[in-house]
Amino acid sequence: MADWLAALDRRAELRARAGLTRRLRPRAAGDAVTDLAGNDYLGLARHPEVTAAAAKALTEYGLGATGSRLVRGSTEAHQELESALADWLGTERSLVFSSGYLANLGAIRGLVRPRTLLVSDAHNHASLIDGCRLSGAETVVTPHADPDAVAEVLATAEGRPAVVVTESVFSVDGDLAPLARLHAVTRRHGALLLVDEAHAVGVVGPGGAGGVAAAGLAGAPDVVLTATLSKALGGAGGVVAAPAGFVRHLIETGRTFIFDTALPPAIVAGVHAAVELARTGDDLRAELTDRVATAVHRLRAAGLTVSAPDAAVVSVTAPDPAAAVSWAADCADRAVAVGCFRPPSTPDNRSRLRLTVNAGVPRPDFDRALTTIVTCAPQEVL
Amino acid sequence: MADWLAALDRRAELRARAGLTRRLRPRAAGDAVTDLAGNDYLGLARHPEVTAAAAKALTEYGLGATGSRLVRGSTEAHQELESALADWLGTERSLVFSSGYLANLGAIRGLVRPRTLLVSDAHNHASLIDGCRLSGAETVVTPHADPDAVAEVLATAEGRPAVVVTESVFSVDGDLAPLARLHAVTRRHGALLLVDEAHAVGVVGPGGAGGVAAAGLAGAPDVVLTATLSKALGGAGGVVAAPAGFVRHLIETGRTFIFDTALPPAIVAGVHAAVELARTGDDLRAELTDRVATAVHRLRAAGLTVSAPDAAVVSVTAPDPAAAVSWAADCADRAVAVGCFRPPSTPDNRSRLRLTVNAGVPRPDFDRALTTIVTCAPQEVL
Repeated sequence: MADWLAALDRRAELRARAGLTRRLRPRAAGDAVTDLAGNDYLGLARHPEVTAAAAKALTEYGLGATGSRLVRGSTEAHQELESALADWLGTERSLVFSSGYLANLGAIRGLVRPRTLLVSDAHNHASLIDGCRLSGAETVVTPHADPDAVAEVLATAEGRPAVVVTESVFSVDGDLAPLARLHAVTRRHGALLLVDEAHAVGVVGPGGAGGVAAAGLAGAPDVVLTATLSKALGGAGGVVAAPAGFVRHLIETGRTFIFDTALPPAIVAGVHAAVELARTGDDLRAELTDRVATAVHRLRAAGLTVSAPDAAVVSVTAPDPAAAVSWAADCADRAVAVGCFRPPSTPDNRSRLRLTVNAGVPRPDFDRALTTIVTCAPQEVL
Repeated sequence: MADWLAALDRRAELRARAGLTRRLRPRAAGDAVTDLAGNDYLGLARHPEVTAAAAKALTEYGLGATGSRLVRGSTEAHQELESALADWLGTERSLVFSSGYLANLGAIRGLVRPRTLLVSDAHNHASLIDGCRLSGAETVVTPHADPDAVAEVLATAEGRPAVVVTESVFSVDGDLAPLARLHAVTRRHGALLLVDEAHAVGVVGPGGAGGVAAAGLAGAPDVVLTATLSKALGGAGGVVAAPAGFVRHLIETGRTFIFDTALPPAIVAGVHAAVELARTGDDLRAELTDRVATAVHRLRAAGLTVSAPDAAVVSVTAPDPAAAVSWAADCADRAVAVGCFRPPSTPDNRSRLRLTVNAGVPRPDFDRALTTIVTCAPQEVL
């Protein structure tokens, strides 16, 4: 009986030896850290209009939604946010989930019919991978960002329903999927395209409406998009934006929608305020683009290997997990927070620092943080 | 390509004919409805100490946690809540997830080793069923609340790791699992016991610490418990409370923990305030017990078939899905919200009203609501 804990201890010891120990490091409310690790790309989590809208809903509705969406959990705040998101993202309808993870689980399962083949990009997020698993459908993983490989797999599935599953901006390296080409391939086959816009909404596309909108595919009847409300929108939760018939299908049958307490009204109202700010935030996006270019330029000039970012995620190669950890820890000691991504959180088993650029960080702090990252870099990557 | 939407339309039409259509009914902030449908059992969602704590954290931290727990999402508020929950529930450690659904998915997968057999109660919640599915482990479903059946299944699994998965208070009928007997069976086999306390924390057990504590099993090394923070605690999110080694295992390997944005600090702080109120809320629990007894007595006296509730969920039999819908709608027309549970949300394919008793509803409104439920009852169940 107690041997299960001993077995867990042994596995923890193996992870420790491989440099893969993970620890929670709680931050204080007023910490003086320059944040290049969070996903609050537009700095909206602390925007006064966002927190004011949340505070108002907190007063009006109380803390939680008190029930699932089909029981007592749907408020007018949810309805208004769903209208605003559909309008922004250019889809017929949208549906808010309590997390992006659950939105992805629900969307994929909702798209699967008997004999459906899922075609999943090799760099897809854990929630998409789990969505494929939970759906029970046959899943083929294709090489990263490779429409030709997708076409080949679809060609083997003639006569079967198929769904191609991809992110638009990938979470680890920040590159944009070839959405127009992927869509051409899926449409030729009569397949559907599911696009997770978690790192794209608010950041790329017209009015920040995301990669699908940027590719001219918003509102296409064979495209379903998902996104988190916790990154550029500064809150929490997830959304599926899609043709109305699919949203109705999720409302009536989606287990991760039906059997889950609704997102708290205060969070919903705060995110709604953030949507309005993000839509009209071309100035924030211009600042973001400039900072990303600056980061890539300065880090490459210092000799570091840096990804070619299409949004606000910048990946910097580290030699190994232990070096990545100590690099990030050295930055943290100098009050700069950077993401430290190691296996199994990386799709290719390589370790890196992941920088997420935030337009809300004061510019001088941002510039100093880049210097800190170079100063702390391990010798072997310079 | 568009045929997938036509196929969804046909399925919606079939559901409509079976009386199984579901619609979102957004509520306004100030609706004058008597709530016998939500899960805010102790009325804490609107408690001034709860909303004040949330408002303070909203000001201090902003709207969202801005990242996953291992990146920027862990705040001191999360740490303090996790300490308070472990202390209350009597476990070594606890870990907060962004939803109870994700806590269950994470806990079950974390408990599965090679060759593990999962033994799942027939009335288990969708999130537990999905947790079993996603884990990939062989799963045997046993008849509801039947330790002998569990013992028989475990006897067939000699030499294999096994996990028995149950709720403590079941969500549909509100009955309490025979936890002491289930634990005796699992311990005899050397198996583990996972207990979902979603409808029990705050409501049953010493200081509201739940069914596991009531059975004297708090802190047992072979018991893992999960709960939502969205019901009696009035907020959102979920928790796994367990031996420290298992919590560490989830922090380092749990996909639904690692790859998900953290619960917003404002929600965390509000829930923390609710935990303190719930722990010391014996008066609220006494009121709840009294109301549940009143409900059962009055509804049975009117001729209705009512469950024998062990907590604050009261199930009232309806003749069929359509009658359940119109019964609930008639109550709603009279400003009384009741849950309407139909297949596939019921474990036995029977339809019922589900009443959830809320100590925060003014007593006269509660009493009037019972009259309304009887008044609106279909003739064939009276």
